[in-house]
Amino acid sequence: MKISSFRPPDRILMGPGPSNVHPRVLEAMARPTIGHLDPEFIRMMDELKTLLRDTFLTKNDVTFPISGPGSLGMETAVVNMVEPGMKVVVCVNGAFGGRIKEMIGRHGGIPLVVEAPWGEPIDPAKLEEVLSQNKDTKVVAFIHAETSTGARSDVAALAKIARKYGCLTIADTVTSLGGIPVRVDEWELDVAYSGSQKCLSCPPGLSPITFSERAVNAVKNRKTKVQSWFMDVGLVLSYWSGAKRTYHHTAPINALYGLHEALLLVQEEGLENAWARHKKNAELFRAGLEKIGLKPFVTGEASLPELAIVTVPDGVDEAAVRNHLLNKFNIEIGAGLGQLAGKIWRIGLMGYTSNEKNVNLCLEALKDALKR
Amino acid sequence: MKISSFRPPDRILMGPGPSNVHPRVLEAMARPTIGHLDPEFIRMMDELKTLLRDTFLTKNDVTFPISGPGSLGMETAVVNMVEPGMKVVVCVNGAFGGRIKEMIGRHGGIPLVVEAPWGEPIDPAKLEEVLSQNKDTKVVAFIHAETSTGARSDVAALAKIARKYGCLTIADTVTSLGGIPVRVDEWELDVAYSGSQKCLSCPPGLSPITFSERAVNAVKNRKTKVQSWFMDVGLVLSYWSGAKRTYHHTAPINALYGLHEALLLVQEEGLENAWARHKKNAELFRAGLEKIGLKPFVTGEASLPELAIVTVPDGVDEAAVRNHLLNKFNIEIGAGLGQLAGKIWRIGLMGYTSNEKNVNLCLEALKDALKR
Repeated sequence: MKISSFRPPDRILMGPGPSNVHPRVLEAMARPTIGHLDPEFIRMMDELKTLLRDTFLTKNDVTFPISGPGSLGMETAVVNMVEPGMKVVVCVNGAFGGRIKEMIGRHGGIPLVVEAPWGEPIDPAKLEEVLSQNKDTKVVAFIHAETSTGARSDVAALAKIARKYGCLTIADTVTSLGGIPVRVDEWELDVAYSGSQKCLSCPPGLSPITFSERAVNAVKNRKTKVQSWFMDVGLVLSYWSGAKRTYHHTAPINALYGLHEALLLVQEEGLENAWARHKKNAELFRAGLEKIGLKPFVTGEASLPELAIVTVPDGVDEAAVRNHLLNKFNIEIGAGLGQLAGKIWRIGLMGYTSNEKNVNLCLEALKDALKR
Repeated sequence: MKISSFRPPDRILMGPGPSNVHPRVLEAMARPTIGHLDPEFIRMMDELKTLLRDTFLTKNDVTFPISGPGSLGMETAVVNMVEPGMKVVVCVNGAFGGRIKEMIGRHGGIPLVVEAPWGEPIDPAKLEEVLSQNKDTKVVAFIHAETSTGARSDVAALAKIARKYGCLTIADTVTSLGGIPVRVDEWELDVAYSGSQKCLSCPPGLSPITFSERAVNAVKNRKTKVQSWFMDVGLVLSYWSGAKRTYHHTAPINALYGLHEALLLVQEEGLENAWARHKKNAELFRAGLEKIGLKPFVTGEASLPELAIVTVPDGVDEAAVRNHLLNKFNIEIGAGLGQLAGKIWRIGLMGYTSNEKNVNLCLEALKDALKR
């Protein structure tokens, strides 16, 4: 096999992530690599933490990017907050809630599940029911924007109930951060993590995370060591905070240049303007879908502006439509996952992807695919 | 704080890693992001696996890059190969052996330590002694090139003894791969992992790993689930191999473009030519150090061409020398870690950094710093 330099095609990324990356972010990543303990790099890290705090709307000191994708951020949250034998309530209304449940079990916790059908938000009353029957629960985990179903849960309400029962919270904001409001401090979330490749317009590979003081104290007061060395936030922080930075692992330098630039773009646009842009383009897209006879799988309050979920019409070969979009229009859209495989398309309008031109192009392409 | 785009200085990276990144690798990383299930991306992944096999000198089917830095590769090796209650011999002659030991304990294994003083290689006879007294040992872990001390151990000899006692092996080749021979198949190593940012001239953030068929079978026959969901190689492979690729986590697309290009550069140069270049420049550097009166901390067979360890002369402020090199010459060299802090400099001539110009510049800079 003769191998040569890889030249990726120019795709319009309208799947559930990654979204298209802003050219300024790509350019930033190509700047010369420097050392992970270089004083200039440490200055950049401090700026990055400030930018992340502004994006998470938090004053949490412990706010930094995990050196791996969103799923590693998820496991970092779980492994630090969960101890063997601990009761943890996990809200499951899609694949990612299920993933948290699996992680809780692997790290020795006892997962108690609050369920909702795929495509629907978690009912806060159900969470309260489970907590009132399990008063020794320590942690509650939930997904803000379920990437597998496109359903938005009311994280503020869930967190309020968790606090009422003395629980710490883990919030997955992978597909929400930058696209819809995520108010870590106002909602008193304890651990929230996200991914770089969704509404932040950055390539995949980094997972911004933030820990409240309550969460940091809980980690400090663990009876057992965190089961993972790499994900032990107490160790990672020797590198990411404090006056003297000491080596833990080698940070992904150039990827962090990219995230710094991506967050700067969010700051330049203004977080509220970014939310408004996502909303406006989602409304345009929804109206267009209706015109061509396509129905949303998730509706109303629970729907996400950054991720439209479209029901595959009866008799339509969903994979053929996706292939047609990719091959003829260079547009990537996402398939259904798990129990929704074959039944839905997941169409992302996230970050840099969310603009009117892409909305119109995708609608044209869908129309073209469906008339065949 | 007014934050603007980050413009890193142009450093000559002569620490223990990261090394300088080839411009072609930086350029590759700035290409447009595509989806992690895009057919074109999957084709690139297959090429990447082929290039990695050629670099590890293995035919192992399970050879791919972990989506995180070398320490995550280390923990992936440990968490998959070690089960709770399992006896694991770990060879410790520096900080990284100590790190493996810590990980074994966190994942429920019982670490038995074979020690050597920092700066010396592991004595194969000592490994044999411990194994002959602990015949229920299942796994032996060792470091090929100890980045904290610059000592090279005889991995072929250690692996042979481990096999004699029916043990599987974990080999850390983070600072060896691409700089000195790493012969996974010839030495019958079972799990070997590396890092992208050393002799492969790629930014940090990825950890190439390879599993022998024996290792894959051991993972398949585990009695307990792998304690980490993210690092469970059985799950990760649903994405990295087989005819139908399914989503596990979102791969760091652009970082993988970079590794693909970096490995292509190794292939273009020829692996043996790369080893020869590292050796030649190391000899030049060693001769130059001698001329200016600096003494190597590691000598002879145990010394590494890609990482010179220099003893700080009595009465010299080691940090002042490093700062002088950084500020006047834009050269980064590394400090000592742990028990060697303040006593040594770690000077890397890895990958793209390893050339005659850098050798001479670093010698000039050291001379300049020492005469002050």
